[in-house]
Amino acid sequence: MSDTPSKVAVATGGSKYARSPLAPETFPDLPPIDGVRFAAGAVGVKYKNRVDVMLAEIAAGATMAGVFTRSATRSAAVLDCQAKLPNISSDAGFAIVVNSGNANTFTGKRGVTDVELISKAAAEALGLPATHVFTSSTGVIGEPLPAHKITDALPSIAETLSAESTEPAARAIMTTDTFPKGAVATCELDGKTVTIMGFAKGSGMIAPDMATMLGYIFTDAAISQGALQQMLSAANEVSFNAVTVDSDTSTSDTVLMAATGRAGNTPLTAPDAAFQAALQGVMQDLAHQIVRDGEGATKFVEVRVTGAASDDDARKVARSIANSPLVKTAIAGEDPNWGRIVMAVGKSGAQADRDTLTIRFGDVLVAEKGWRAESYTEEAGASYMKKPELLIDVDLGLGSGTSTVWTCDLTHGYIQINADYRS
Amino acid sequence: MSDTPSKVAVATGGSKYARSPLAPETFPDLPPIDGVRFAAGAVGVKYKNRVDVMLAEIAAGATMAGVFTRSATRSAAVLDCQAKLPNISSDAGFAIVVNSGNANTFTGKRGVTDVELISKAAAEALGLPATHVFTSSTGVIGEPLPAHKITDALPSIAETLSAESTEPAARAIMTTDTFPKGAVATCELDGKTVTIMGFAKGSGMIAPDMATMLGYIFTDAAISQGALQQMLSAANEVSFNAVTVDSDTSTSDTVLMAATGRAGNTPLTAPDAAFQAALQGVMQDLAHQIVRDGEGATKFVEVRVTGAASDDDARKVARSIANSPLVKTAIAGEDPNWGRIVMAVGKSGAQADRDTLTIRFGDVLVAEKGWRAESYTEEAGASYMKKPELLIDVDLGLGSGTSTVWTCDLTHGYIQINADYRS
Repeated sequence: MSDTPSKVAVATGGSKYARSPLAPETFPDLPPIDGVRFAAGAVGVKYKNRVDVMLAEIAAGATMAGVFTRSATRSAAVLDCQAKLPNISSDAGFAIVVNSGNANTFTGKRGVTDVELISKAAAEALGLPATHVFTSSTGVIGEPLPAHKITDALPSIAETLSAESTEPAARAIMTTDTFPKGAVATCELDGKTVTIMGFAKGSGMIAPDMATMLGYIFTDAAISQGALQQMLSAANEVSFNAVTVDSDTSTSDTVLMAATGRAGNTPLTAPDAAFQAALQGVMQDLAHQIVRDGEGATKFVEVRVTGAASDDDARKVARSIANSPLVKTAIAGEDPNWGRIVMAVGKSGAQADRDTLTIRFGDVLVAEKGWRAESYTEEAGASYMKKPELLIDVDLGLGSGTSTVWTCDLTHGYIQINADYRS
Repeated sequence: MSDTPSKVAVATGGSKYARSPLAPETFPDLPPIDGVRFAAGAVGVKYKNRVDVMLAEIAAGATMAGVFTRSATRSAAVLDCQAKLPNISSDAGFAIVVNSGNANTFTGKRGVTDVELISKAAAEALGLPATHVFTSSTGVIGEPLPAHKITDALPSIAETLSAESTEPAARAIMTTDTFPKGAVATCELDGKTVTIMGFAKGSGMIAPDMATMLGYIFTDAAISQGALQQMLSAANEVSFNAVTVDSDTSTSDTVLMAATGRAGNTPLTAPDAAFQAALQGVMQDLAHQIVRDGEGATKFVEVRVTGAASDDDARKVARSIANSPLVKTAIAGEDPNWGRIVMAVGKSGAQADRDTLTIRFGDVLVAEKGWRAESYTEEAGASYMKKPELLIDVDLGLGSGTSTVWTCDLTHGYIQINADYRS
């Protein structure tokens, strides 16, 4: 098999809907990571004429880490990843197989068998133990996965593996995404430059979705599995877990990270500040791209909460605002309806005091001391709301708790996409 | 002043949007309650040419009870009601004054003063102590209330008080409502027939709103204040508190109930089963009407959860389903996308087991034993979803916990109403 699937992918991957107005101009130039190769195939799981299977091969000597949804109805693939991860070894390589179009969730014992079949097929194609194959499935819930389409195609897909095929890989995991999402950063570890590269999918981020997000991160740094897991989990809290209220509870959410160790640094056995910052940068970049591709989104919104009695309270308030349909529709209408922010603060469950609350839209002081700010004008608020990127800044004036969450507006586009998702 | 405002009201009250397709055909014929009179006035708080102030007068000898939002940013009127309620006496009568168009919330010390001014004006007009005047305000948050328009008009509005003016009263409290909401029931108390009558407003029930709902219930039964409060609170849990996830935390939610004692029954000093059932009927009727007038609603949906490990778990699952934008948009699209119900169960935080979960749409068995039901067909599901009234029935198969919640779908109409709410 030639690399035709990849070329098809670049031409046709993703949603039938128009590219998000908040999308970056181009897919970033992702450098190869020594020890990792990618391939994409079009097998017709659900979509026709587009890539829908991603294969990643990670060479022996790597470590791996992952974070997953906490949903009580999580998918067979997620349960399988969680069972495998504690029992891996660097003696053999790894594979990641992802399909889009079907979530293989709530598919009973057949769903479990389908994960085993795919793992086995990938293991045979790449000469790995099946216990080293991680899978993800994203798409509609409750439909049986046509696993044979994937297992039949894996040998030929494996023949097209290449270190450069990151964009086809990023496209193959898309569902209602309108653009592929990639990010890269470098940092120094004892004089060696290491690279962190990743891609992600996700578009239904205004609300919990049945397959909200998947992310795959790769680095050539040498890092112990324990340190890798610690750094991935920490970065996840301020990136993918900070872009929507319920992303942590959808049925398929998965972030997997592999460190190949090929950069030649002295292996990290504990979290490293420089690497942590670079990793957080890559993951926040990807998380922001997911918000920018939020279904129907026309505004990118940062909700920054300070002065809360605790970080937990700050997070409650930030999520309450970011998840409020009334706040989000007001933003869609470019209406500086700050009363809805007061409402969202009030309903959050966090400690709040009307008379110490301060609300700003960017630099525009809107409300303070229990009252609309004297300097505030409706014109200033309305003018600010016309921007495509907005900052809602809430200071509770009670303590030192902080939290930042990113979201988008709620528009007719969201209704359109979700009212006919399966049609 | 003549009763012109009432007539204007009937002709022009409520939303600029079309009457909900789920609305009842007519406003019910509400009988007078001995000891209670109503009036409505058009004072131009915000809306032009429609009634926007409701006045109710309750004769001496009555008891009163109330339930209120738990929002941390609740309105000046709610705080005032909560302060007054424990300190009232049946020696004097009561008044209720409600304005629509402005929520008098987050309006600092001026908001508090405005409540005092309105209470004082109503007290003077009706010859009552100001501590016996309860007020509510519903509408936009953060705008100063033009209280003088209300206080100036109260004397002439009071001149039009009449036991029959329930429909104008119900119209005067409307904001984005497309129809006025009333309900009535009777029951026997030691051989005397007593009547329970009430009206309510509310339309932004798909989500927490800044003034989601107000309800006013009246009865001629004789009931001690303690028993009245107990019965009102109990009925509230399965009516107004069961129609939307966050109705209990908006800034102005208020339900007030007065019992005039004129029916001549031996005064109830403890909850009575017959009265409780009749009261629950009235309040559920009103609560259902609020859902039927949900902003943009085209479907009335009952979510019934059984078999949960506890009632609290059942409630979590019911609310998670009823509040999920993805479930609600699927319903709007008449898409039997039951996978989204699996997702909502999974994210609810309640104990759930894929293999014991059963999902039905009305009588259509959709999923059981961790899998789509063998008898289920997409045609049967799609056909069911075309009904205007839907039942989503979820049995968790774990215990005896139950909960029922009512909601509506999420449509383009919701976006339209809320993206231009203040324009």
